[in-house]
Amino acid sequence: MAQVLYDFTAEPGNNELTVREGETVTITNQGVGGGWIEAQNSRGEVGLVPEDYIEVREWLGVLSMELASFTLYIKRFETRWSIACSLISVLGFLCCMVSLPCIWLLRVCVCVWVGAEEDEWDDEWDDVKSNSESGDGGAIQRGGATGSSMKISLNKFPGFSKSGPELFLLCKQPPKGKEKITIYMGEVGPVWSYPEAQLDCVVADPKKGTKMYGLKSYIEYHVIPNTTNRPVNHRYKHFDWLYERLLDKFGSAIPIPSLPDKQVTGRFEEEFIKMRMERLQGWMTRMCRHPVVSNSDVFQLFLTYKDEKDWKTGKRKAEKDEDVGVMIFSSIEAEAPDLDPIEVEQKCDQFSRFTKAMDDGVKDLLTVGQEHWKRCTGPLPKEYQRIGKAFQNLSSVFTSSGYQGEATLTDAMTSAGKTYEEIAQMVAEQPRKDLHFLMENNNEYKGLLGCFPDTIGVHKAAIEKVKEGDRLVAASKITPQDKVTMAKRVSTMSYALQAEMNHFHSNRIYDYNRVMQLYLEEQVKFYETIAEKLKQAHSQFTTM
Amino acid sequence: MAQVLYDFTAEPGNNELTVREGETVTITNQGVGGGWIEAQNSRGEVGLVPEDYIEVREWLGVLSMELASFTLYIKRFETRWSIACSLISVLGFLCCMVSLPCIWLLRVCVCVWVGAEEDEWDDEWDDVKSNSESGDGGAIQRGGATGSSMKISLNKFPGFSKSGPELFLLCKQPPKGKEKITIYMGEVGPVWSYPEAQLDCVVADPKKGTKMYGLKSYIEYHVIPNTTNRPVNHRYKHFDWLYERLLDKFGSAIPIPSLPDKQVTGRFEEEFIKMRMERLQGWMTRMCRHPVVSNSDVFQLFLTYKDEKDWKTGKRKAEKDEDVGVMIFSSIEAEAPDLDPIEVEQKCDQFSRFTKAMDDGVKDLLTVGQEHWKRCTGPLPKEYQRIGKAFQNLSSVFTSSGYQGEATLTDAMTSAGKTYEEIAQMVAEQPRKDLHFLMENNNEYKGLLGCFPDTIGVHKAAIEKVKEGDRLVAASKITPQDKVTMAKRVSTMSYALQAEMNHFHSNRIYDYNRVMQLYLEEQVKFYETIAEKLKQAHSQFTTM
Repeated sequence: MAQVLYDFTAEPGNNELTVREGETVTITNQGVGGGWIEAQNSRGEVGLVPEDYIEVREWLGVLSMELASFTLYIKRFETRWSIACSLISVLGFLCCMVSLPCIWLLRVCVCVWVGAEEDEWDDEWDDVKSNSESGDGGAIQRGGATGSSMKISLNKFPGFSKSGPELFLLCKQPPKGKEKITIYMGEVGPVWSYPEAQLDCVVADPKKGTKMYGLKSYIEYHVIPNTTNRPVNHRYKHFDWLYERLLDKFGSAIPIPSLPDKQVTGRFEEEFIKMRMERLQGWMTRMCRHPVVSNSDVFQLFLTYKDEKDWKTGKRKAEKDEDVGVMIFSSIEAEAPDLDPIEVEQKCDQFSRFTKAMDDGVKDLLTVGQEHWKRCTGPLPKEYQRIGKAFQNLSSVFTSSGYQGEATLTDAMTSAGKTYEEIAQMVAEQPRKDLHFLMENNNEYKGLLGCFPDTIGVHKAAIEKVKEGDRLVAASKITPQDKVTMAKRVSTMSYALQAEMNHFHSNRIYDYNRVMQLYLEEQVKFYETIAEKLKQAHSQFTTM
Repeated sequence: MAQVLYDFTAEPGNNELTVREGETVTITNQGVGGGWIEAQNSRGEVGLVPEDYIEVREWLGVLSMELASFTLYIKRFETRWSIACSLISVLGFLCCMVSLPCIWLLRVCVCVWVGAEEDEWDDEWDDVKSNSESGDGGAIQRGGATGSSMKISLNKFPGFSKSGPELFLLCKQPPKGKEKITIYMGEVGPVWSYPEAQLDCVVADPKKGTKMYGLKSYIEYHVIPNTTNRPVNHRYKHFDWLYERLLDKFGSAIPIPSLPDKQVTGRFEEEFIKMRMERLQGWMTRMCRHPVVSNSDVFQLFLTYKDEKDWKTGKRKAEKDEDVGVMIFSSIEAEAPDLDPIEVEQKCDQFSRFTKAMDDGVKDLLTVGQEHWKRCTGPLPKEYQRIGKAFQNLSSVFTSSGYQGEATLTDAMTSAGKTYEEIAQMVAEQPRKDLHFLMENNNEYKGLLGCFPDTIGVHKAAIEKVKEGDRLVAASKITPQDKVTMAKRVSTMSYALQAEMNHFHSNRIYDYNRVMQLYLEEQVKFYETIAEKLKQAHSQFTTM
């Protein structure tokens, strides 16, 4: 059972289902992919609806899980509070019937009573919930729900209520003796300093764990960096914590794509876990590939902490890091002459235009790909199946003729019919083999490109500030020396942006080259297999 | 401009257009094929509508043609009746504006005045009109318009107002000394006597001719039999005349499929002529293949008349042939023992079931094929084109990056994009290369199968008559000897039906084997070409 969140009008003939906000539908197939699920309305009509238009009511599943938890819970404490717990379990059951928030409240009460660690409550649903607000990695942009841009924390320091790059442009003196981020002049222009060995990691082995005496369940992943080859355990909430830290620290200079949280769907829990893992892997790979991010203390902590104590200490330290927001630029040193503010502005505009154009291009490809996915998994295989059935049907009519010597024909026609049924299945399964990766890659890029407006916005604000320089000096808001410093620092910012763009470009070329090759390779295989199957079907007819 | 004949509700998403009876639409593309034309309604909406739902108003085209004819006509007779003709031409113009029948009447008047041969008036439109009531060889069975069954003339002789097989069952004595049609016992059962050399003919060289001083135009085809290799000229109306003769003569025993008259469409006159010729060729080939039909005087006359006089004499003779309707059975002699009436009935029922089942199977395949045709020429290539455009678009965005050394990627992506555009075109063109022949073959069979109920009906009526035998004898309506004769004659009818069914089966096996092979062959080529194109596109990416 699921509830419809927004009106959706079926584009008819495409196997879609028109639904109205508030309507209740039954999910008949959650595994069609491409951001669609198959649902049935109260009139029995079945069709595709965008996933993010539907909120799956999982309370029936949750209810049974809860009951099991409570039962376990009661058993353990039977001797002490059997009556109280029976009461709680009855109450819990009733609350389940009403809505999930009640359950959650009840659990909080129980937890407080039992005396659970406070910082462990707020996370558990991260690991289990899903399925409701998705959209194939953002492939669907209909509901206008998913805003994948970063929220850079510029307002962190109370003294600077007028948030902005002034914090860096006018800071008294760059802090000394800390991590330095160096920019070199490479063949393509300013580049980050790349490590000799590329950091990489594997996200694997998702394991379900429980805590709070079985009240809560979560998924724990192994993360294995290629540097130590030693797995560390992380739950989704740890990835989320890492994301927040990276965003705080680097977001002004480096686009930090969102975690694949609400974008993951799956028919079964395993499928959901697998998909989330695949996307966490993609996110981690991208972070590992970034020379600045991968080299940071917080990222290294995440990958290589030795034990629980090490992790907790590192966590606390990272959370207290004040070198965040625009102050990241204070760590950056460009080994090149200062840039003219006009050139800085030109570069910035160029990047802005490019990322906007690429964002449009990527979204266009996603839209087309999604349409194609729908056709390949919906009407097209149905049609091939019908062709196959029609051949087989005619063949069985022929068999009934009573005429001698047509077994070769009827066998061949049946075989041709079956071939078309096989082709139907191949067509339906193909998107998962090729289009999937093209879509995933473009979804990742859509997420990345969604971060650029914020990153570029910081630079534009800095440029504006420098332009105001003379006025600010005249108004005695800053000293002439401040103005010189600002120009110098905006040059550093520009080098950082250029280095980041060059990093982006080199990754983009690598990624698109790889994904296009994979796509075409699989497409070639697909068409070759079909041709081969049809050739075999053809060979069964007698040449006359 | 065209008028909508029946309501049609678009199956949405399939590029169809909803139209209402009586609505006027503009034909925007008559060449989409598969029984569809593209039309635009008064609100500017464009979509596909079944051809047979629309009546093309050709009067605008006809008007200009008529005017040209009249002008020519006037020029020639200027000296004699310049005033009268001007008047006629003005009248003609006015009539054109009102409706076509008026024109036709006017022409009749003119013709009478000029003294044209009477038997030449009634045919001219056969050659030019078309396009209006079609349906891809009957692929569309929606309006329920086209009844492709034969109209066997059982009521030809006034003495037998209770039409039926009695005419043959009870005729005094089989006429002697005329064409004999022999049935032998072959391996598969009763078979017609097949000629040693298979008759065949080529329909070719359509030429436009005019007559009535340029008033009328028509198409004349060369028909070249493989026996004489000498072409004879025939217009469509001659084929129609032949059809009528064959139907009269053989229709009770042999299904004579309708001529492909109203089933032909084409965007241009040439396309229409080509398509009609292709279907006349198909019809003639089928008739040539039939041992009884091809051996008949009337068919031989059609193929091998020596001159106009020969043709006219033969025509008159054929039209006076009284050996038509059920009397064809009086020419048939089966070299086998008489059949038991029970066996006759069983055979008849079996054929009835088979032809019904095959009719259903063929119609099903036609429906599926038509849907597939529509998808392959409509939404599918559009989608491939959009994929191609999306790749090319992204490639051109990449080119604008200003980053060095990505020419290989952008070139390869552009090339991949173009490949998908090529695939789009291939997909759209493919149905004419393979599905077309599968559809044509099944349309032919649909036409043939539509004749069987009538043929089988004659047999069933005869069987009923024989069953009534005792009652008729008791009521002194027939003599006991009549009853014996009737049983004997119904046995002959059954042998004829069996021979015909065996002929049908052997042709069916040949035809379906051939057409399935052709279809699969072309399909293999199609998928291989796509795989090859994609392989080339793939090879342009650099392996990393």
